[in-house]
Amino acid sequence: MIDDDKLHEECGVFGAWNVADSAAITALGLHALQHRGQEATGIVTHDGVRFHSHKGLGLVGDNFGDAKVMASLPGTRAIGHNRYATSGETVLRNVQPLFAEFEFGGLAVGHNGNLTNANTLRRALVRRGCLFQSTMDSEVFVHLIAISLYSNVIDRLIDAVKQVIGAYSLVALTQEQLIGVRDPLGVRPLILGRTHGADGKTGWVLASETCALEIVGAEFVRDVEPGEIVIIDDRGVQSIKPFTPQPPRFCVFEYIYFARPDSVMEGTSVYTARKMIGAQLAKEAPVEADVIVPVPDSGVPAAMGFAEASGVAFELGIIRNHYVGRTFIEPTDQIRHLGVRLKHSANRAMIEGKRVVLVDDSIVRGTTSQKIVEMVRQAGAAEVHLRIAGPPTSYSCFYGIDTPERSKLLAARNSVEEMAKLIGADSLAFISIDGLYRALGKPGRDAASPAFCDACFTGDYPIDLTDNNEPRDNQPSLLAETK
Amino acid sequence: MIDDDKLHEECGVFGAWNVADSAAITALGLHALQHRGQEATGIVTHDGVRFHSHKGLGLVGDNFGDAKVMASLPGTRAIGHNRYATSGETVLRNVQPLFAEFEFGGLAVGHNGNLTNANTLRRALVRRGCLFQSTMDSEVFVHLIAISLYSNVIDRLIDAVKQVIGAYSLVALTQEQLIGVRDPLGVRPLILGRTHGADGKTGWVLASETCALEIVGAEFVRDVEPGEIVIIDDRGVQSIKPFTPQPPRFCVFEYIYFARPDSVMEGTSVYTARKMIGAQLAKEAPVEADVIVPVPDSGVPAAMGFAEASGVAFELGIIRNHYVGRTFIEPTDQIRHLGVRLKHSANRAMIEGKRVVLVDDSIVRGTTSQKIVEMVRQAGAAEVHLRIAGPPTSYSCFYGIDTPERSKLLAARNSVEEMAKLIGADSLAFISIDGLYRALGKPGRDAASPAFCDACFTGDYPIDLTDNNEPRDNQPSLLAETK
Amino acid sequence: MIDDDKLHEECGVFGAWNVADSAAITALGLHALQHRGQEATGIVTHDGVRFHSHKGLGLVGDNFGDAKVMASLPGTRAIGHNRYATSGETVLRNVQPLFAEFEFGGLAVGHNGNLTNANTLRRALVRRGCLFQSTMDSEVFVHLIAISLYSNVIDRLIDAVKQVIGAYSLVALTQEQLIGVRDPLGVRPLILGRTHGADGKTGWVLASETCALEIVGAEFVRDVEPGEIVIIDDRGVQSIKPFTPQPPRFCVFEYIYFARPDSVMEGTSVYTARKMIGAQLAKEAPVEADVIVPVPDSGVPAAMGFAEASGVAFELGIIRNHYVGRTFIEPTDQIRHLGVRLKHSANRAMIEGKRVVLVDDSIVRGTTSQKIVEMVRQAGAAEVHLRIAGPPTSYSCFYGIDTPERSKLLAARNSVEEMAKLIGADSLAFISIDGLYRALGKPGRDAASPAFCDACFTGDYPIDLTDNNEPRDNQPSLLAETK
Amino acid sequence: MIDDDKLHEECGVFGAWNVADSAAITALGLHALQHRGQEATGIVTHDGVRFHSHKGLGLVGDNFGDAKVMASLPGTRAIGHNRYATSGETVLRNVQPLFAEFEFGGLAVGHNGNLTNANTLRRALVRRGCLFQSTMDSEVFVHLIAISLYSNVIDRLIDAVKQVIGAYSLVALTQEQLIGVRDPLGVRPLILGRTHGADGKTGWVLASETCALEIVGAEFVRDVEPGEIVIIDDRGVQSIKPFTPQPPRFCVFEYIYFARPDSVMEGTSVYTARKMIGAQLAKEAPVEADVIVPVPDSGVPAAMGFAEASGVAFELGIIRNHYVGRTFIEPTDQIRHLGVRLKHSANRAMIEGKRVVLVDDSIVRGTTSQKIVEMVRQAGAAEVHLRIAGPPTSYSCFYGIDTPERSKLLAARNSVEEMAKLIGADSLAFISIDGLYRALGKPGRDAASPAFCDACFTGDYPIDLTDNNEPRDNQPSLLAETK
Repeated sequence: MIDDDKLHEECGVFGAWNVADSAAITALGLHALQHRGQEATGIVTHDGVRFHSHKGLGLVGDNFGDAKVMASLPGTRAIGHNRYATSGETVLRNVQPLFAEFEFGGLAVGHNGNLTNANTLRRALVRRGCLFQSTMDSEVFVHLIAISLYSNVIDRLIDAVKQVIGAYSLVALTQEQLIGVRDPLGVRPLILGRTHGADGKTGWVLASETCALEIVGAEFVRDVEPGEIVIIDDRGVQSIKPFTPQPPRFCVFEYIYFARPDSVMEGTSVYTARKMIGAQLAKEAPVEADVIVPVPDSGVPAAMGFAEASGVAFELGIIRNHYVGRTFIEPTDQIRHLGVRLKHSANRAMIEGKRVVLVDDSIVRGTTSQKIVEMVRQAGAAEVHLRIAGPPTSYSCFYGIDTPERSKLLAARNSVEEMAKLIGADSLAFISIDGLYRALGKPGRDAASPAFCDACFTGDYPIDLTDNNEPRDNQPSLLAETK
Repeated sequence: MIDDDKLHEECGVFGAWNVADSAAITALGLHALQHRGQEATGIVTHDGVRFHSHKGLGLVGDNFGDAKVMASLPGTRAIGHNRYATSGETVLRNVQPLFAEFEFGGLAVGHNGNLTNANTLRRALVRRGCLFQSTMDSEVFVHLIAISLYSNVIDRLIDAVKQVIGAYSLVALTQEQLIGVRDPLGVRPLILGRTHGADGKTGWVLASETCALEIVGAEFVRDVEPGEIVIIDDRGVQSIKPFTPQPPRFCVFEYIYFARPDSVMEGTSVYTARKMIGAQLAKEAPVEADVIVPVPDSGVPAAMGFAEASGVAFELGIIRNHYVGRTFIEPTDQIRHLGVRLKHSANRAMIEGKRVVLVDDSIVRGTTSQKIVEMVRQAGAAEVHLRIAGPPTSYSCFYGIDTPERSKLLAARNSVEEMAKLIGADSLAFISIDGLYRALGKPGRDAASPAFCDACFTGDYPIDLTDNNEPRDNQPSLLAETK
Repeated sequence: MIDDDKLHEECGVFGAWNVADSAAITALGLHALQHRGQEATGIVTHDGVRFHSHKGLGLVGDNFGDAKVMASLPGTRAIGHNRYATSGETVLRNVQPLFAEFEFGGLAVGHNGNLTNANTLRRALVRRGCLFQSTMDSEVFVHLIAISLYSNVIDRLIDAVKQVIGAYSLVALTQEQLIGVRDPLGVRPLILGRTHGADGKTGWVLASETCALEIVGAEFVRDVEPGEIVIIDDRGVQSIKPFTPQPPRFCVFEYIYFARPDSVMEGTSVYTARKMIGAQLAKEAPVEADVIVPVPDSGVPAAMGFAEASGVAFELGIIRNHYVGRTFIEPTDQIRHLGVRLKHSANRAMIEGKRVVLVDDSIVRGTTSQKIVEMVRQAGAAEVHLRIAGPPTSYSCFYGIDTPERSKLLAARNSVEEMAKLIGADSLAFISIDGLYRALGKPGRDAASPAFCDACFTGDYPIDLTDNNEPRDNQPSLLAETK
Repeated sequence: MIDDDKLHEECGVFGAWNVADSAAITALGLHALQHRGQEATGIVTHDGVRFHSHKGLGLVGDNFGDAKVMASLPGTRAIGHNRYATSGETVLRNVQPLFAEFEFGGLAVGHNGNLTNANTLRRALVRRGCLFQSTMDSEVFVHLIAISLYSNVIDRLIDAVKQVIGAYSLVALTQEQLIGVRDPLGVRPLILGRTHGADGKTGWVLASETCALEIVGAEFVRDVEPGEIVIIDDRGVQSIKPFTPQPPRFCVFEYIYFARPDSVMEGTSVYTARKMIGAQLAKEAPVEADVIVPVPDSGVPAAMGFAEASGVAFELGIIRNHYVGRTFIEPTDQIRHLGVRLKHSANRAMIEGKRVVLVDDSIVRGTTSQKIVEMVRQAGAAEVHLRIAGPPTSYSCFYGIDTPERSKLLAARNSVEEMAKLIGADSLAFISIDGLYRALGKPGRDAASPAFCDACFTGDYPIDLTDNNEPRDNQPSLLAETK
């Protein structure tokens, strides 16, 4: 089910406080956030006395569909996590939420994002005698909390978050609170919602995106602010802001690809943003054509915006097959050779003899784009033009997005003309970085203080890369574990 | 992955002759036909000496993704089958292709459709001493072939098909031929394609739909004709027409919902047909509105046609979640209560405060429509109008489509006004039967000789319902088997 | 769990009539008969209206331990079957009981043994238009019943059994009777028991061995007689003897190895028989030694008899490990090299420095014997003498026992001296054929009319080998099926 | 496969140094130690650079039979562990060997036994900021090593073992050594063996019992001494004795039931010990009888000793069924009611009309004994006398043996006469505690300084029960985890 040739969000998080059947509600919220991570999932609940945990590899629906499992997760308080990870390292000990027991009680933590000084901190902690069980950044948080000299959990948590550097959103559950934390620049998203409480008063929900509110029937309250810690207990929501304020830098790629189109992020509808980007792209890189065809599903809104702005017909010239089994991708050379066609197929009747504009959101390695252009040509297109609703992806992300090494990014090594040739398109154009900002309602990119984190396009990294400048070592352990 | 509140095609078939890696090619073809049946799948190959079979419950990708399985299916000749079936009866002995050994050799058969005199024939065969192993119609074919007095397999096959009554498409593999059969009225589809042969000459492919040709890189040759038997061997394709010619009656519901939009059936693009139906519907049942919203995925082309014809904006106001796990549908009342939202969610930004026209392809029980209308209203729609790109479904199908009993069809018991009220829509309209025919390029419905089988809308059944007038007993066996 | 270097019984059968929880009782009976077949198992019940079936690969306990499965098998009448089969061919369609529907109703059949004219009959039936679904002998029975012209099931069954030739015991369940059949020579065993009936009157049980009566709390009534058909219904037990009487030839290997020691066969305790054989062996082939050591578990009673007769100490010099997992036998060369030691290990304290007599029941290929002798020598034995409680196994069995091809039987190609050398024993001796008969209470072997079937020792085959003189083709089908 | 009504050893350990295919050798060693724990198993290897780990629930053969798994465990150094645990708590995080990374490198640990101050230490460590991932005693060791201020691993290990109190044997693997530790009183066993080294020089093996040496072809060197730490590296074996010497107290129950009969412990053959105990029992509690019948398998050697000493015939009057599937024990009341008969059945021919002496090793709750006596009576025994080859088990063990709470031990609440009555035996006798010591070659029990740990019989606990006097809380965590 994974698109190999896309960037991938590394996680989705959800939390619930004072909500009946909190495990079922959390499972639904995680289901709505499934696009943020499909490799593994977990839920921890608290029933007033004990914590209860269930984790598993695979989809939310495959792990939390069983009534026995749900019955083993009692309580009105819960947090949950979806994990994306590159193949091989997804062993169960690396599945979140992490749980730890301290002198003061238990704590469960789930986080989305990446700490850029995790390895540095980890080495220091190990030197001190801390034992690490996983290779996850989140475990650094937990050890920092464990060894903090403050006496209560909130002070310990503040102590911990002030020592870490990175882009992250975090949900935590103690015996007395549900906690949400967003990094100082607000790179990764986290929102707060309200619902009917299990006790008849108010129930609270935290989630990576607003689409998780809709599914559980909760109401949007507000984005958690950059650098804010929200503490939710039976008295309501309290806010702590332990960091020196900085201008926020929300991840612009959430608008381009990661987020679900029905989410609203920082006040902007993702779906509308994509249509606006498509419209801007049509203005910047018009083309004489018969038909505008989206690469489904992520290219659809941008293609609609492009078609409306250009006045050319919008048609579903590529059909997506949604029945892709788990194991289909591995087998024989022959099937591998036919590759992308397992998910996409050309709608020949809309393509044959036509000048086609394909609209997609991004090009990473370029392998999928190349196969799709070839498929459209084989279906009889007279011309194939490719328009990309994001600037060229030329730099790796160190803030919680799985990017290939820079050397594998097509745009890092090639000009647009070279890329067009490699992909086989008659023409290729990307939206400009200023055009992207304008489509998102900004006057253009202010180089001195950009409104977004756009490091993958510009190389301008707003958060220190303490550990190093390379994609982090995904398995920094002496132990190779098989499952 | 199944839409509970849709009619369901009962099967998809595929065959390959003189094709390298015929099992992999057949798996790909079945994958493209996955929408015609997701419960079980099977492939039988012939390697020149022996037949090889593998069958399993679940998706094609889950059963044929394993290299060991593919290696156990050698040969350049194969047939395959996807099965849809209502829950409970999908035991392995009922998974096709069926294989049987005769005096003259082996025969594998896969079929899509339904025999309306199967039970009658079955009783006669049992009386004669034939032992049935399954409860499938297809086994009747096989016994008729076994006891036929003709000496060669083609004559025996003709002998058999002349005794059965029904709507069906059939692929069969002997030690010397690939055979395709289509019922006399051509109710169910079957097409012939050509590809590069394993021996450097021509390879041949049979499939339920043209979309299965695209994925394997084969070229469309023609529809198998109603009542035609095609015999494919190393000398090429021969055609036999053993039936008295009749005006054809292709299933109109293939255009409305069953077929994949990128297929071309009887010369008409399914995608284009759906857009034309949507446009006709806009003419017949216009409504003052702000936005046209498809119920994804099947309602999208009709909604596009509706929007174009009406000049109202087309927007993706409902987003579909494609990560629905296998077991998610079963559990707690709370999740069941939230029902349809596992697959659909409202894109609030496109709906809030707007007058919305929802376009869907059909209403069966009405349960899904009711939930979707409610969801759209909860997302803040000012008005919700429902337009259906097919006439009211008032009659059961006995020709290979799984329909609920007539008493459960919403349109069988209610007027359009009553249906609107039950579903909660501000208005509801269906395309007229004449409008449907016109959208498909006919002058309207000729009651004396309709161009299509439209029995589910009209109750006009073109093929004798010999066994009875009720949906057939799905488990007509003395044996209840557990798996 | 299988001893690779033993002959193997091909099946065990059980039947119950008028017994509460007949499926659970049958599962228990099959569990007691598990030594007769471990590859697959099945139960069919009848609840007065319908038949219910569950079959699976593996042990009885692994297939019938689940309460849901047991609940799916209602009724007070049942038959069950354990299957032994050589690797590869155990696909589900070959698991018994077979079930078939006839004009007169349903019939389930399970059988233990082998038909020596099965292929001949099968060819004739196929020529007539019968479709075979399995490669099992039992299916021949069922087709013969289906095409019989007699009007009631008993007459049809008699018609069928008179046409087959072979060594078999059969249990069958119709809507109105439980039926047991034993072949005319009584080669394979079948016994009748009585228990508390579900209706407060008498319940009846059929089983391959008496050990299956003990576990279900039933009382032994009598052996079914050679050539007898017993018909059990609510009126009690009726007996039909459709064959010309012949002197019986019970399989002597049941006493030597197949049967469980706590069973009583044809009036003789198997345990006592083995002790008597050991005692006779001690008389025939005495040896100066310090200790008598059985090869566990099957060699224990004979070793006890040998020790008592010889006055030498009996000690457990070899310990058996009962925790052998399913997959342990397959892996690396290193483990394969250590082979037999997974199941046996030397009890060094009882062996070191001693003159050891090993007592085993049989030598087939000799591979296991060779490894055990080597193991005992490595544990420090001063001398290792091997005594075998059966004559040399020099001929294949065609009557329901899995024997290697004759060329792989060590005794078929070598003298006793050569065998001793190959196995590495200081001396080797087998009981004589006359000694065997005497141990079993006969005056010796009467060559004109031997009391037992001893073809594996003597080559004197009492039943026609119609199909051929070679071990039957285990996969006589055009279809290679993978599971 | 578990005997519910027995005491159970909590673990078996194995280690290998400089041994080719160390993972396969360790798997074989663990297989030989399978009787010490069947719930879970794990192996950690070191290949000179990294550690490699594989763990799983179930038997050794089921987890290490797969060639892919074995290939993932390279290296010539390994440790392994078999785990016994009461149901419910066997989640994967509690399966050993534990692995941890320190400043100085990695360490894997497996241990057999129990720490009596584990909870006390754990609380202190948590207070200091240590995070525990499991509920295993072994994790206390690991944290003590992590926080030790000594600079090398051996000094840290000594620092750790001096702080723990308990009965244990431990194997550990660092990047540079294989380490074995035995508790100061030597309650739990650990032995050292020698084999052919991977480099042509010497290879070393550690194991819980000598039977694990036989299977891997290694030679017994000596018992690791009570309180000894052995350090194995390429220079050979070094010995450290960090404790004040104390008179040893080896667990006497190892001789009675836990150990495999072919093991030699502290210089005494377990098999011989059991025969001697049986002989002593015959002297202490003789009975007029016809036949001595062991309760298989553990009662066999004692019964042989009893029979020899009493001159009464030894017969296998109870047959054990070794095909007990995993799930058979759970189902219907009817099967549960028939309980023990799944594993045992009466050999009626040896019992009917006879005065029977049953010999077993111990009585825990008494449930099994009661059922076996009943079974033997139903098989027609004239009298049933029960003789137990151990003193009455009246006290719980806190040293690594799973014992029921004291209140559930039959002997804790009843006199021998009452027990006989409850069990239904005509007479019942246990060996005396002095008789037991004498059978083991001691002059009797010296109350001032007993030669063995016999706390389960006498209540004389030789090691401080720091945590408490109750069986330890098996799940002392705030987290309830489901798997």
